[in-house]
Amino acid sequence: MSTTTTHTRSPGSEAPDLSTFALADGFRTAATACGLKPSGNLDLGLVWSDGPCAAAGMFTTNRVQAAPVHVCRETLSAGFGRVRGVLYNSGCANAVTGERGLADARRMRELGAEAIGAQPDEVLVLSTGVIGKFLDMEKLARGVATLRSHAALHTAGDAARAIMTTDTRAKLEFASLALPGGRATIAGFAKGAGMIHPNMATMLAVITTDARLDPLRLDRCLHAAVERSFNRISVDGDMSTNDTVLLLASGASGVVVDDGSEAAFTAALTDACASLARQVARDGEGATRLVELRISGGATERQAHRVGDAIACSPLVKTAIHGNDPNWGRILAAAGYSGEAIEPERVRLWFGDGDDVQLLDRGLPVAFDAARASSLLKQDPAIVHLDLGLGDASAVVWTCDFSAEYVRINADYTT
Amino acid sequence: MSTTTTHTRSPGSEAPDLSTFALADGFRTAATACGLKPSGNLDLGLVWSDGPCAAAGMFTTNRVQAAPVHVCRETLSAGFGRVRGVLYNSGCANAVTGERGLADARRMRELGAEAIGAQPDEVLVLSTGVIGKFLDMEKLARGVATLRSHAALHTAGDAARAIMTTDTRAKLEFASLALPGGRATIAGFAKGAGMIHPNMATMLAVITTDARLDPLRLDRCLHAAVERSFNRISVDGDMSTNDTVLLLASGASGVVVDDGSEAAFTAALTDACASLARQVARDGEGATRLVELRISGGATERQAHRVGDAIACSPLVKTAIHGNDPNWGRILAAAGYSGEAIEPERVRLWFGDGDDVQLLDRGLPVAFDAARASSLLKQDPAIVHLDLGLGDASAVVWTCDFSAEYVRINADYTT
Repeated sequence: MSTTTTHTRSPGSEAPDLSTFALADGFRTAATACGLKPSGNLDLGLVWSDGPCAAAGMFTTNRVQAAPVHVCRETLSAGFGRVRGVLYNSGCANAVTGERGLADARRMRELGAEAIGAQPDEVLVLSTGVIGKFLDMEKLARGVATLRSHAALHTAGDAARAIMTTDTRAKLEFASLALPGGRATIAGFAKGAGMIHPNMATMLAVITTDARLDPLRLDRCLHAAVERSFNRISVDGDMSTNDTVLLLASGASGVVVDDGSEAAFTAALTDACASLARQVARDGEGATRLVELRISGGATERQAHRVGDAIACSPLVKTAIHGNDPNWGRILAAAGYSGEAIEPERVRLWFGDGDDVQLLDRGLPVAFDAARASSLLKQDPAIVHLDLGLGDASAVVWTCDFSAEYVRINADYTT
Repeated sequence: MSTTTTHTRSPGSEAPDLSTFALADGFRTAATACGLKPSGNLDLGLVWSDGPCAAAGMFTTNRVQAAPVHVCRETLSAGFGRVRGVLYNSGCANAVTGERGLADARRMRELGAEAIGAQPDEVLVLSTGVIGKFLDMEKLARGVATLRSHAALHTAGDAARAIMTTDTRAKLEFASLALPGGRATIAGFAKGAGMIHPNMATMLAVITTDARLDPLRLDRCLHAAVERSFNRISVDGDMSTNDTVLLLASGASGVVVDDGSEAAFTAALTDACASLARQVARDGEGATRLVELRISGGATERQAHRVGDAIACSPLVKTAIHGNDPNWGRILAAAGYSGEAIEPERVRLWFGDGDDVQLLDRGLPVAFDAARASSLLKQDPAIVHLDLGLGDASAVVWTCDFSAEYVRINADYTT
């Protein structure tokens, strides 16, 4: 159980410290290892509230959608966005499992409901792991029984760890915000290291707030926040069958988000989601650093986003950054095939947080200090700024560098 | 000079043997090392005909186009598709080089024209290598002088080697075809190992034929052939600023391609281009094998092609194949985010040339022999067959596996 609001940041990280991490007031957590992961690591978690919460969800746009995605949609639709909790597992995605997978996900929902004394249509379910395997329902049932016992782990950090697969570290965020009605909290965790692509979907995230919002408003805030956070990251351009972001509002702070404060709440939620998104990108499989692509001068935000997306997905760009190699031609080439009508002779390019080194000026190479440019690519985050010279719109997209370790991790995942 | 028609296939390869490779009758070649490559390898080549040829070209659709691409378009347009030859270099792409780059490419065209006694608007130019560097015109001029001397190398195999950059081997194809008017030849070479993406562009290829076709017909044949060959391969999803395919027809065989024989010529040209395309995909940077994706059951050929393209570009699929890992979930997930309206419950999947092992049947996993499935992925080519169950259209897309060596090659290319 974790309802304290004290937290610290880990050294050298933008994430809160795992040991003091807390969710928003009104939420409890439980986690255990039920054997779905052969490693014996935590693989089952539960986040719940004593009373009904407003809930909103965003899901993968892949045509192949995992059973828990279907069941979450059912739940949110049937309960009009009112739920009591989320039961989730790692180690098995319950995807491409047909009718049996759907039945398993619904049974998982029932188990979660029984565990917290709720109705099945008040519980959301998430699964992540290997595709095409059935959930081991015996292990899952035993695990849920453990979650209700004193054998379960109750810190929010444990809950965050239970959702991890190839992640090397938990992704956490805690934010306190001042609204007209008082202080409220937004806190959540995420998982994701591979199969992450912007503009289409996200990884798994469970975000809580103790502010009070009706489900429609909550849904609107979540869509706006995800568009500028989880939809702005790419690790490998792949998109999962299970990607889901859930936002639950307990109202425990008594602070109401209304028309007057919705913009402030959305801004804080966007910041929190962007922090989680950056943590996911930085922990990309095999990655050694975060890459921040700042695209300015777009005719529209969508154009800037799509150009950034093409660069973020380019293996050639990402391997060059890994090698600290200021091979800016690859960045420009990726912008050129983004599908957006860029005009090469207007493009400018810099590396570094303060546009420290310029590489291109209106489409032409600029003589630059290669050692200095290389050292800027070594920084975490490595910052690349491309100005399209076409307008005033901008977008930031995050990705990671691409190392040989990515291949090693992914060449041998199921077997 | 190489005008013989004898040739053999290299053992274990679909390419002709480098030492006996020949272009079509009517074409001569010269190659040399002029110092554009620090390695001292061949980096300058010339293919020409004693008389005017019909010529057709297809070029990158990247918004960032290299100077030689602009100049080739000029030449084909000014000369109404009649040219005398192609001068090409590796070691420098002459891309993102502005007005000076354009002037350099036009000067390169003049040098090529002087070398063979032609007009500048009768010579096409190609460049490949690092982006954003100016051509060293002194080295180039000295190199062209060498091409005219007895110091030049004159086999077609040397001409094919002079276009290579990170390629580990030359890509060659020679085909003899029977047309109503007699036998004709199609023969050419290509380069490409990274920055290769289907549907948008190709790598560099110079293809010759001794058949006689007018430029408009030649252009139509080339477009049809490229659509089902070079536009069906992907190494890393990146698309170059320089990609170009040129087709030159000398007419030296006297065999005329007319309305009656155009289909047969196009079919032979498509086969030749597909062979070159497969050689490029197989030699993808760091690749250990060719991957052939057979997509059937599409509502349209475009749908089948786009699904195959999404799979071909997925790092997760390509690393799994590298690891001989029958992780079919990644293949299905890639099909699901292709943007095509696939219906997961209709999809079937097999590995092997004879659909040897079935992995999915109408959207559900099939119990399969993992060792057998893994062994099929080890084959070269590794063959994956996905049936969408939506119609009768099909497409074949080629890619390669994705190894840690790809990262090593690309993390350190310019520096």
